Amino acid sequence: MTTGKNYIGNKQSAKGSKTYKTFNPQLNIENKTIFTEATSKEIDEAVHLASEAFKTFRTISGEKKALFLNTIADEILALDDELIQTFCMESGLSEGRAKGERGRTIFQLRSFADLVKEGSWVEASIDTAQLKREPQPKPDLRKLLIPLGPVVVFGASNFPLAYSTAGGDTAAAFAAGCPVIVKSHPMHAGTGELVASAIIKAVEKTGMPNGVFSNLNSSGINVGTQLVKHPEVKAVGFTGSIRGGRALYDLAAQREEPIPVFAEMGSVNPVVMLPDALKNRGEALAKTYAGSITLGTGQFCTNPGLLLAIKNDDLSKFISKLSEEIVKIEPSCMLHPNIIGAFETNKKKALSQSGLMVTADYTSNVKSNYARQTVTTVEGKTFLENTTLHQEVFGPYSMVVQCENANQLELIISKLEGQLTGTLIADKEAQNYSNIISALQNRVGRLIFNGVPTGVEVCPSMVHGGPYPASTDSRFTAVGVNSIKRWVRPFSFQDWPNELLPIELKNENPLGISRLVNNKMTKDTYESF
Amino acid sequence: MTTGKNYIGNKQSAKGSKTYKTFNPQLNIENKTIFTEATSKEIDEAVHLASEAFKTFRTISGEKKALFLNTIADEILALDDELIQTFCMESGLSEGRAKGERGRTIFQLRSFADLVKEGSWVEASIDTAQLKREPQPKPDLRKLLIPLGPVVVFGASNFPLAYSTAGGDTAAAFAAGCPVIVKSHPMHAGTGELVASAIIKAVEKTGMPNGVFSNLNSSGINVGTQLVKHPEVKAVGFTGSIRGGRALYDLAAQREEPIPVFAEMGSVNPVVMLPDALKNRGEALAKTYAGSITLGTGQFCTNPGLLLAIKNDDLSKFISKLSEEIVKIEPSCMLHPNIIGAFETNKKKALSQSGLMVTADYTSNVKSNYARQTVTTVEGKTFLENTTLHQEVFGPYSMVVQCENANQLELIISKLEGQLTGTLIADKEAQNYSNIISALQNRVGRLIFNGVPTGVEVCPSMVHGGPYPASTDSRFTAVGVNSIKRWVRPFSFQDWPNELLPIELKNENPLGISRLVNNKMTKDTYESF
Repeated sequence: MTTGKNYIGNKQSAKGSKTYKTFNPQLNIENKTIFTEATSKEIDEAVHLASEAFKTFRTISGEKKALFLNTIADEILALDDELIQTFCMESGLSEGRAKGERGRTIFQLRSFADLVKEGSWVEASIDTAQLKREPQPKPDLRKLLIPLGPVVVFGASNFPLAYSTAGGDTAAAFAAGCPVIVKSHPMHAGTGELVASAIIKAVEKTGMPNGVFSNLNSSGINVGTQLVKHPEVKAVGFTGSIRGGRALYDLAAQREEPIPVFAEMGSVNPVVMLPDALKNRGEALAKTYAGSITLGTGQFCTNPGLLLAIKNDDLSKFISKLSEEIVKIEPSCMLHPNIIGAFETNKKKALSQSGLMVTADYTSNVKSNYARQTVTTVEGKTFLENTTLHQEVFGPYSMVVQCENANQLELIISKLEGQLTGTLIADKEAQNYSNIISALQNRVGRLIFNGVPTGVEVCPSMVHGGPYPASTDSRFTAVGVNSIKRWVRPFSFQDWPNELLPIELKNENPLGISRLVNNKMTKDTYESF
Repeated sequence: MTTGKNYIGNKQSAKGSKTYKTFNPQLNIENKTIFTEATSKEIDEAVHLASEAFKTFRTISGEKKALFLNTIADEILALDDELIQTFCMESGLSEGRAKGERGRTIFQLRSFADLVKEGSWVEASIDTAQLKREPQPKPDLRKLLIPLGPVVVFGASNFPLAYSTAGGDTAAAFAAGCPVIVKSHPMHAGTGELVASAIIKAVEKTGMPNGVFSNLNSSGINVGTQLVKHPEVKAVGFTGSIRGGRALYDLAAQREEPIPVFAEMGSVNPVVMLPDALKNRGEALAKTYAGSITLGTGQFCTNPGLLLAIKNDDLSKFISKLSEEIVKIEPSCMLHPNIIGAFETNKKKALSQSGLMVTADYTSNVKSNYARQTVTTVEGKTFLENTTLHQEVFGPYSMVVQCENANQLELIISKLEGQLTGTLIADKEAQNYSNIISALQNRVGRLIFNGVPTGVEVCPSMVHGGPYPASTDSRFTAVGVNSIKRWVRPFSFQDWPNELLPIELKNENPLGISRLVNNKMTKDTYESF
């Protein structure tokens, strides 16, 4: 049952006077639970507890961290139907989606558990001493990755489970050895509280230090601002809008001690469609893209909001077909009145730009909070001249840019802001467009061939991130086990006695992990060299 | 011969009217060459060239990059005595030091050449498709590291070769595939120009694109400011003062598209001396530390500026002995009148703090620009209460803090700013001080056991960096081949055709590099799985 209270470490607390409720967009009514926003004192307490917890949590073995992560997964599953119902009630999303997202959340937690249990992720590296080296002896140096400290996580509105309370950022931070303070997303505060209760149960069951996790309710910007400015907070994870992410980035950069902010933000995910592909299978592509643009009511960060192609008859046919197909799809519910409000506002702004033509607009009556999918088209020259057209319209919206020729297509790509993904739709012709592929690669974090950008696989080879503003630091990914690298730093021991070294760097290699020893990857002990 | 001109790509250029000269601190006179500061137009041209060069340079093979890096090394060696003499003339440092630093520079260039020639550094990762997976097929995903784009490098005043024009930052950026624009350090502009000429020769000999390197003269902050704000610049490397590094960090963070700045800045490199060690070998330690404090006239970023110990008779004896030993050492020349000016000012400020006692101060007459080494001491309580005492005095200066007990020692460590290094001087007692070791680890990038912090080995296990303000991003090292990670980002290909993939990700593994294939490290081709 949701109580509306915060978790300050293991303790529930609601000392504030500011309250709010979540909203059921399907029924168009407020949900019942009253959530109490965390007070300044509660925030401070949560951060202090995290800072204290870090002293022990940062040295806890990989095996114990794995048990903690797996127990969180178990406890989330144990929430069972209450979690699924709360998720649906607070998001307007389907039960199938809720279960799918829960599966993804569990998979992420267990993937990080496997990673830290195995242990090689710390990138252990050993350079042994050369006492007779001239002109000076070489010392013994050993390196591994260690956690940064308390991490603040801002959950995503569009993924109440997989990228929120116990989502990718939290799982990665715990795996790294960092305590986590979640700034709960106000649109799904109940889902957040339930997941937080599961984490707290796991903390208690596996003997993790009190303060390793806190969950703070918040309906405005104050809680987040205080957290990011707090001197004991050492890193921030965020998924959401460019405006929100940039505000946090700026706050963190202005601190006396600047801290890293990894914000995964907006993207229009350009799709480049080459002529032969459009000629040979334009119709099938139109159907596929009608589906991708409207998937999850267009509320994925990888939604294809921009289709780029060279102007010809095949493209005209594709646009007609896409427009025809997309209005056949039943409109669906957006996450919250604020989200659909923004969708309508941004769409209206785009539609008011001169030179833009609407080719599909769902006009029949729809229920409250249901989004009308829209397709527009524009000439390459118009697009180049008006950067308002480059901006994301978050929701089931996409714009087709009709380029004069391949050169203009390349120029347009090079003028785009950074993107999470770029997609190439091509037949045998791809090799003739190396400049276009190269330009696209330079603007994105992931290139997809003959597919759709929606769908982000959780695996080591995934990159979910990209040049700004897709993310605030393209050097890291937000999805997959490598996302742990956002929360760690390399650390070096020089001439350190074997008995005092962390287990990953001891001569004996007790964990049997892969290490770089004198420039050679090996699982051997040091003596056997 | 030095001309005083800039290199805008391969072309020498001096269109500006603002000029300056370097200074010989040993002779206390200006050197002859007149350097012309780069104009705004020249800066713009250099960045545009770099941006254009990036289009081809980023895809050049590891083997060709290795040839380029090795040719730079060859051409630097070919500068021979002219380089050594210019180095000494512009720094006041000895010929031995010049040759040592040249050796380090060459070693760094060749280390990066080896790294990129071998090729596994790109962290290639392959997750193959599972077309029958339910509920959805898994796509093929492949990842590698790719370069960020043009990098601006600000060289260090205290390392005219190893951390300047063709120093660690430049070598790492070239290895990554990033063009480099050097903002030449005004104190050794001649050394910089000579090294730049060697790089340009290597560019031409190995057929690298024009613009892959530029060298811009500058005596103030304007050139650097324009470079960091330039939209086509994608990352910045800096070695120097906190003030300088922070100013660049702030500029970069305020850009429309923020870019990463890796600044390696100040550090007092705390040395914790435990009681048994001081009792058993205080005298030897005093001699060792008198040497380390004055090494290179105290102008190393790892200079031990802060010695921490628990107050007792052994510590008093150590302080006396250290003070006695340090004044036996002949004073030496600092890099520039500005540097010794800052040393005197900062020392004076420290010495004026109440509660501070001077225990050694070289008082005999010294030549102009020669620094008088100084040792001071202070009570733990005084140190805790006055953060002015925590600030670095760059030069041959160190302060001994006499702590009341182990608890106060731990508290003092926890209140320190971030540091490059922390050193533990201990006998068998170390295991009884785990809280102190843990607190020290949390404030530094490298821990040294029973040694001195001066001396930074170039090897994979080195970490030269640390929590702010030791560096602006503790997640990276500035020294060693892993410093390449500052200039690259992970990139993912989804369902990309084998023939269009970069060589590192092709099924056949033509380079025979180590790759993570379906979660297993291997050098095999994909077919053999």
